Amino acid sequence: MNDLLSHKHKDVREKVRQLLKDPEFDLDLISRDKNVFREQTLKWSQLLADQGLGAIAFPEKYGGMDDMSKYVIAFEELAFHDLSLLIKFGVQFGLWGGSVYWLGTEKHHDKYLNDIATLKIPGCFAMTETGHGSNVRDLLTTAVYNPDRETFTIHSPGPEAGKEYIGNAACHGQMATVFAQLKTLGEDYGIHAFIVPIRNTDGSSIDNVHIIDNGHKLGLNGVDNGRIYFDNVEIPRENLLDKFGAVDKEGNYTSPINSPGRRFFTMLGTLVGGRVAVPIGGLSATKKALTIAVRYASKRRQFGAEGKQETIILDYPTHQRRLLPLLANAYAYHFALHYLSERFTNRTEKEAQEIEALAAGLKSMSTWNTTATIQECREACGGKGYLGENQFADLKADTDIFTTFEGDNTVLMQLVAKSRLAEFRKEFGKMNVSNILRFLKDQAETIVLEKNPVVTRRTSEEHLRSEEFLTAAFSYREEQWLSSVGMSLGSAIRSGKDSYNAFLDHQNACINLSKAYIDRVTLEQFNKVVTSAEAEIYDVLKDLRDLWALSNIEADKGYFLEQGYIEGAKSLAIGSQVDELCAKLKKNAVALVDAFGIADQLIKAPIVQS
Amino acid sequence: MNDLLSHKHKDVREKVRQLLKDPEFDLDLISRDKNVFREQTLKWSQLLADQGLGAIAFPEKYGGMDDMSKYVIAFEELAFHDLSLLIKFGVQFGLWGGSVYWLGTEKHHDKYLNDIATLKIPGCFAMTETGHGSNVRDLLTTAVYNPDRETFTIHSPGPEAGKEYIGNAACHGQMATVFAQLKTLGEDYGIHAFIVPIRNTDGSSIDNVHIIDNGHKLGLNGVDNGRIYFDNVEIPRENLLDKFGAVDKEGNYTSPINSPGRRFFTMLGTLVGGRVAVPIGGLSATKKALTIAVRYASKRRQFGAEGKQETIILDYPTHQRRLLPLLANAYAYHFALHYLSERFTNRTEKEAQEIEALAAGLKSMSTWNTTATIQECREACGGKGYLGENQFADLKADTDIFTTFEGDNTVLMQLVAKSRLAEFRKEFGKMNVSNILRFLKDQAETIVLEKNPVVTRRTSEEHLRSEEFLTAAFSYREEQWLSSVGMSLGSAIRSGKDSYNAFLDHQNACINLSKAYIDRVTLEQFNKVVTSAEAEIYDVLKDLRDLWALSNIEADKGYFLEQGYIEGAKSLAIGSQVDELCAKLKKNAVALVDAFGIADQLIKAPIVQS
Repeated sequence: MNDLLSHKHKDVREKVRQLLKDPEFDLDLISRDKNVFREQTLKWSQLLADQGLGAIAFPEKYGGMDDMSKYVIAFEELAFHDLSLLIKFGVQFGLWGGSVYWLGTEKHHDKYLNDIATLKIPGCFAMTETGHGSNVRDLLTTAVYNPDRETFTIHSPGPEAGKEYIGNAACHGQMATVFAQLKTLGEDYGIHAFIVPIRNTDGSSIDNVHIIDNGHKLGLNGVDNGRIYFDNVEIPRENLLDKFGAVDKEGNYTSPINSPGRRFFTMLGTLVGGRVAVPIGGLSATKKALTIAVRYASKRRQFGAEGKQETIILDYPTHQRRLLPLLANAYAYHFALHYLSERFTNRTEKEAQEIEALAAGLKSMSTWNTTATIQECREACGGKGYLGENQFADLKADTDIFTTFEGDNTVLMQLVAKSRLAEFRKEFGKMNVSNILRFLKDQAETIVLEKNPVVTRRTSEEHLRSEEFLTAAFSYREEQWLSSVGMSLGSAIRSGKDSYNAFLDHQNACINLSKAYIDRVTLEQFNKVVTSAEAEIYDVLKDLRDLWALSNIEADKGYFLEQGYIEGAKSLAIGSQVDELCAKLKKNAVALVDAFGIADQLIKAPIVQS
Repeated sequence: MNDLLSHKHKDVREKVRQLLKDPEFDLDLISRDKNVFREQTLKWSQLLADQGLGAIAFPEKYGGMDDMSKYVIAFEELAFHDLSLLIKFGVQFGLWGGSVYWLGTEKHHDKYLNDIATLKIPGCFAMTETGHGSNVRDLLTTAVYNPDRETFTIHSPGPEAGKEYIGNAACHGQMATVFAQLKTLGEDYGIHAFIVPIRNTDGSSIDNVHIIDNGHKLGLNGVDNGRIYFDNVEIPRENLLDKFGAVDKEGNYTSPINSPGRRFFTMLGTLVGGRVAVPIGGLSATKKALTIAVRYASKRRQFGAEGKQETIILDYPTHQRRLLPLLANAYAYHFALHYLSERFTNRTEKEAQEIEALAAGLKSMSTWNTTATIQECREACGGKGYLGENQFADLKADTDIFTTFEGDNTVLMQLVAKSRLAEFRKEFGKMNVSNILRFLKDQAETIVLEKNPVVTRRTSEEHLRSEEFLTAAFSYREEQWLSSVGMSLGSAIRSGKDSYNAFLDHQNACINLSKAYIDRVTLEQFNKVVTSAEAEIYDVLKDLRDLWALSNIEADKGYFLEQGYIEGAKSLAIGSQVDELCAKLKKNAVALVDAFGIADQLIKAPIVQS
């Protein structure tokens, strides 16, 4: 079972692992003084760049492997080390490098990619503004073309237009990809990206670029975030990253994509890689927290029967209930996120929208799970969990922003729902009246079939733990949310409500719809792993799958009962199965965290040193 | 409405408020360097002591007010300032001072209380050990009486016996109340408390006392926690805090309480004040987080209908759902905790056990709510919430341990359940067969009455928002959990299972039982406030009560549906009421956080400065 979660891309994985064993990567070097920590993080990033890890996602021509899924593996491994380093790495090579690669053209690649991959040019990804985080389309920074000088003027028209929380900005960044409203010859062409120098090699700011340190943050204090303001900064015309929109000498704008809306979403879509990598990094932190909490729980004793040795705390049903479903979650998201990574790496244009929705949804669900899991692990280790030395402090603080950056989860879940609803509308729109009637009749029949008392009341272990029941329940929930929100939205819009306000009325339902979708996809991936598992690990993986799926249904039992999909007795039986699976999996809990494969020297918590 | 939550003990409240306005209490003085921060916290504590605030809970003879509920008010106000200061204050005056006061006798009071209240003797409360946090009865530190020298020898028999996380230990404490197993004349009398000097006035350790700094913690870095080991330290016989157990010169042990078990619980019971004060401090942090998040949400705009001004984020149904039930929770716990504080202050011996259970349960429920609320508020402020300047970082980190200290919540909830079950057994035990039959018949009739389709299907707003329905639902849940766990435990024990293992099988159900109990008590207190509210605030308070109670039922709808207490349509109607109440209360949200009465200078977050 040892390499169950780490058999992919062993080349990159081993390279990172070996590198992190270098004494230069000693975690004890981390300082609580953010200035010292920031320099350490830069130094570590340089060591990674020197080994060619900065170029993984770039073409071979620029020293890379042209493989996004390998970049994701590097992210997964680096996150076991330190999360400030991970984010610094992601800012430099993923965001700054990635934006030049995906939004620029060959001239930009030739000029910059090598220097980015080797960290010769530290840079920033300057999208978010103080006034606009989620709503990127309405950013205020402007880029006005000056035909006479063949330059763009980059400008922040007020404090709300300052670029906010920009990694690498406070200390190290020399250039930035700046997102701004492109204006030329009196026309506004919307958001485009520009390469803007912000700092000289001696560390001083470029004239008319004002940078303010974001100061102390909740976590990730090894990353130098800052605000950047541009006061009419002129850059050459060539600094427009012009893959999706170019301006010629005279100022004429051209784009391979005519629709401004589609152009905007295509540009942003190329940057979705962050939404694949970030949750994987968060999941590594989750695994580290679980490793510590489970190992501790398997040794720590407290209370017990009179006159006997105290009880191991993992033997307490409450403790099993706290940790084991979270352990199952970590496996579930591991399988789902690696599926996403492969699909993203090999995506065709036709699949792009589906994969973007999947990335947005999985990023959200998985990072929420990260926050919840690390919290529970901290609490499950009591006062020991509160001491800095036992590692939860940094894991918690550093990952807390994962639910916000690369897209606020609540906003992303609305996007996922909209994408699903668009599919639903497409399907529905194709139908004529008789097809719609047949669809509704089929759906009603399925529901009658599934809601038959024989099914809603079945409580046998065999039934509850069958792939058939689990898949049917997850699919029912997904389809029910989709069709009920879809129908209800449709009728609101038909009755004259504008689509913005109609959606507003269904915001909370949209989140349920998106969750149901991601849960169904995650179950499918877990099922695949179970089906193809080797004999010796089949049982434990099926137990884990069952625990994950049944505790998911249990947490949402109000919904299933409300719908009449299950009856009270079945709901109670599901709860009992969860209890039994927790008790059963307890025996394998340590082996299951060992299988995360985190190097011993990275688990420094004294509470798990024997 | 302005002093709705702050009309009690205005004298203490105003004193603290005025004091905190002193420039000496400037929050900008807080340093990220823990050594500087620790000295600042000590200095602040001295300023409070100089104003007589250290003595509030002590008798007038020692400069105090002899009023625990006033101490709680001071705690509530101080927590609005800084939580490291709060905990330093609690360690010095509540734990160190409180243990001398409650466990000692007049000779100890005369000798120490004045010096403790004025901070002349900084001290520690050394109960927890590395090996034993929750299980206090099995602490390893020993106190052996030496009749020849009339001394006790305090000793830590190994690393697991070191006193752990002790506040004031790493730097400032000169003495400590040490809990140890008292042994005299070859007999073991269980846990008792002793005053042990640990540090000389020059700051050096006493001979044979070894202190290790706990170092950096997740939060509360202004408190100097440490480990203390005793290597056969001798103290005079008089240093035994001998209210509940004394040793005479010859070494003979006497106690006013014969049963060792009852003696142990009586001693611990006198220290329950911490479980009253700590959740109030946590609630103040919760209020501060809500104040920032609600004010921000009422001004921040993001996205919107095409061509219109962007939407205020509090107008988003998702945002209302995130913040408003949490706002209602804060009010609910405010009323419940102040009820607890009054009952604790005026308790009679007969009520002690009930109030201890109430304190344990409310401490748990309220501090879990603190962790959850601050987390949601941070996320609801997006990236802004992650910057140190916007205050969530410290609120989150500092309160994270509240679910653990003063008793781990999961353990406390088991104690609550045991106390409730003991009551149940007492009631049940008194009955003869015909009474038991009548009880069961009555209960069955109530259930039939309440589970009548007319009731389980009623969905009118008038019904759902009636005190009658809410009270009946909360009471049903409490009684159902109590009788089902009680009956099931009883039959397990009758069939030969030992009580330790029988309880183990019901651990998870016990948590539900305790929650249901605390929820019912909380609802009762909220009801009382609504019933006695003045006309102008009646409506908003009733809306808040309804939101709190209905979202509580909604969160547990799986249970109520499983039980057949409500049907699907009623469950859906409850969800709709929650939506409507959120939308309605949104208009009063800012006024409701203003009513928390937090001084302007303590809300420093730039995101809510206009």
